[in-house]
Amino acid sequence: MGRALAEALLSAGYRTTVWNRTTGKADTLVGKGALRADSVSDAIAASPLVIVCVGDYDGVHEVLDGSVAEIRGRALVNLTTGTPDEAQAVAAWAAGHGADYLDGAMMAVPQTVASPDAFFLYSGSAAAFETHRDVLDVLATSYYLGTDAAAAELWDLALLCSGYAALTGFLHGAALLDTADVAPSAFLPLATRWLHGMIAFMSELADEAESRDYTTGVSPVAINQVAVAKLAHVSHSRGVSTDIHAPLQALLGQRVADGHGTDSFASVFELLRKQS
Amino acid sequence: MGRALAEALLSAGYRTTVWNRTTGKADTLVGKGALRADSVSDAIAASPLVIVCVGDYDGVHEVLDGSVAEIRGRALVNLTTGTPDEAQAVAAWAAGHGADYLDGAMMAVPQTVASPDAFFLYSGSAAAFETHRDVLDVLATSYYLGTDAAAAELWDLALLCSGYAALTGFLHGAALLDTADVAPSAFLPLATRWLHGMIAFMSELADEAESRDYTTGVSPVAINQVAVAKLAHVSHSRGVSTDIHAPLQALLGQRVADGHGTDSFASVFELLRKQS
Ligand SMILES: NC(=O)c1ccc[n+]([C@@H]2O[C@H](COP(=O)([O-])OP(=O)(O)OC[C@H]3O[C@@H](n4cnc5c(N)ncnc54)[C@H](OP(=O)(O)O)[C@@H]3O)[C@@H](O)[C@H]2O)c1
Ligand SMILES: NC(=O)c1ccc[n+]([C@@H]2O[C@H](COP(=O)([O-])OP(=O)(O)OC[C@H]3O[C@@H](n4cnc5c(N)ncnc54)[C@H](OP(=O)(O)O)[C@@H]3O)[C@@H](O)[C@H]2O)c1
Repeated sequence: MGRALAEALLSAGYRTTVWNRTTGKADTLVGKGALRADSVSDAIAASPLVIVCVGDYDGVHEVLDGSVAEIRGRALVNLTTGTPDEAQAVAAWAAGHGADYLDGAMMAVPQTVASPDAFFLYSGSAAAFETHRDVLDVLATSYYLGTDAAAAELWDLALLCSGYAALTGFLHGAALLDTADVAPSAFLPLATRWLHGMIAFMSELADEAESRDYTTGVSPVAINQVAVAKLAHVSHSRGVSTDIHAPLQALLGQRVADGHGTDSFASVFELLRKQS
Repeated sequence: MGRALAEALLSAGYRTTVWNRTTGKADTLVGKGALRADSVSDAIAASPLVIVCVGDYDGVHEVLDGSVAEIRGRALVNLTTGTPDEAQAVAAWAAGHGADYLDGAMMAVPQTVASPDAFFLYSGSAAAFETHRDVLDVLATSYYLGTDAAAAELWDLALLCSGYAALTGFLHGAALLDTADVAPSAFLPLATRWLHGMIAFMSELADEAESRDYTTGVSPVAINQVAVAKLAHVSHSRGVSTDIHAPLQALLGQRVADGHGTDSFASVFELLRKQS
């Protein structure tokens, strides 16, 4: 990812200084006009904006800890993937050393960096975001999510939640059709069409979860309970795993048991959300 | 649903005869020009195409069993939701009484019938589908899925699989953000953007599941295992349910344990699909 980020900056004409632990991996970037720093401290000292992207947050600390003097007065943007707590720890470190900190999460793969498909989430210093937004926009569409440095990582995880669920559900549906020798590629067009409809429906779910009013009568829990039970029954009878929908079945069952069978589907939000 | 279907046919100018167990419920349709049948047999005898839509397949048999003589030579389209086995049982009944049978599944709600958002799945008699396709296309976009009457119900369930997973994943992500007082409506735009990307990615998943070649190195199991574990860890620490992703976590863990950690994410298909 670091290479893709540096390449995007070079392509956009920004003076870019690079450092990588394994020095040789920066050779192609240097060939494209990047300036090579001999140390992390030199790399940090070279620019007002410092972008860090390594494997994990242990690596972030390892890389930065020796450059306490150089980081002062700079904007530090950390695009390494981590947890909200890890982001807050780096934010505290940066604040302690006079740096403006922005935590980031990259909704992209190296191939999509700097393409319209990529978007990056940022949270932390609003000043750093505003000052360097033009540079950050070169990497991806930028979304600023507030001053809490933890926010970008939390949003990243929330998106992963919904993404993993959708991908797994698609493979599960494909597995069910595989029992009738329907190929996954044949399933794809209708699954795509259906999922676009589901995404449109999410705005109703969001409204209901937000108002915590599930009395709209749209798609009641009890009817969905029957449908998911049927899904489990048919999956089982065809030798397809029923594990994937067991949690949803349990949630719907609990809503019915709690006397909320006529509430709308979105009301399972009450069982998922923060215990308050 | 029966009322929405009849209304769509009337609006399109088709002569439409209606019967409903509770007679009064057909009054508004009669007001709009529908012909009221006094019995199921009269309703069936009135048209070459007979559309049945009742609560469940027990109801289908109850409604049809007394009209064995009238059904002969007609096309019977059953839009009641059921299982693949239930569809095959009605297909056998229809074949035994000289009717052309099409089983159908409605990917719609009453409000979307006859709108571009609705699509109906059909399987069974190709002749019935071809002969009556113009009428069926009034109700929704029609997809014909082959001669096995069970197919429409199986595809319906496969789509429900993917749809339920996506909706549940969205609510789960919203619950995670709720712990930071981010409203579900604020989550919606980025979730939508991310899910559109996931839908695009499903075509790679479909290709891999179809070829059963997971050596592409795109999004390896082991990396996803780490990400899902982090998701579970952060959900837990914030008091959000971790149930939803437990099955995926188990599937990824099993792939790694089986020595497939470098295979791509799509390879969980192997654990979901038909035991062969
Ligand atoms: N790849 C993706 O599709 C993707 C997507 C979204 C987010 N991310 C996130 O982006 C970050 C980087 O991922 P990647 O795909 O670029 O991983 P990668 O190809 O494995 O690269 C890891 C980089 O981190 C460096 N590094 C690791 N530990 C270090 C340490 N202790 N000290 C100094 N340098 C260290 C490595 O240096 P060496 O070259 O010396 O090993 C290498 O440059 C991760 O947090 C990842 O979760 C990746
Ligand atoms: N509503 C949706 O959004 C939706 C979406 C997709 C699929 N479906 C499927 O469409 C079918 C109908 O659903 P719906 O929403 O229209 O349900 P509904 O409003 O409850 O209507 C059920 C209909 O079936 C009739 N019926 C039930 N049992 C019967 C029996 N034993 N004999 C004669 N008539 C009987 C009822 O007659 P009475 O009026 O006399 O009670 C009523 O006309 C179901 O299979 C459902 O799963 C519905």
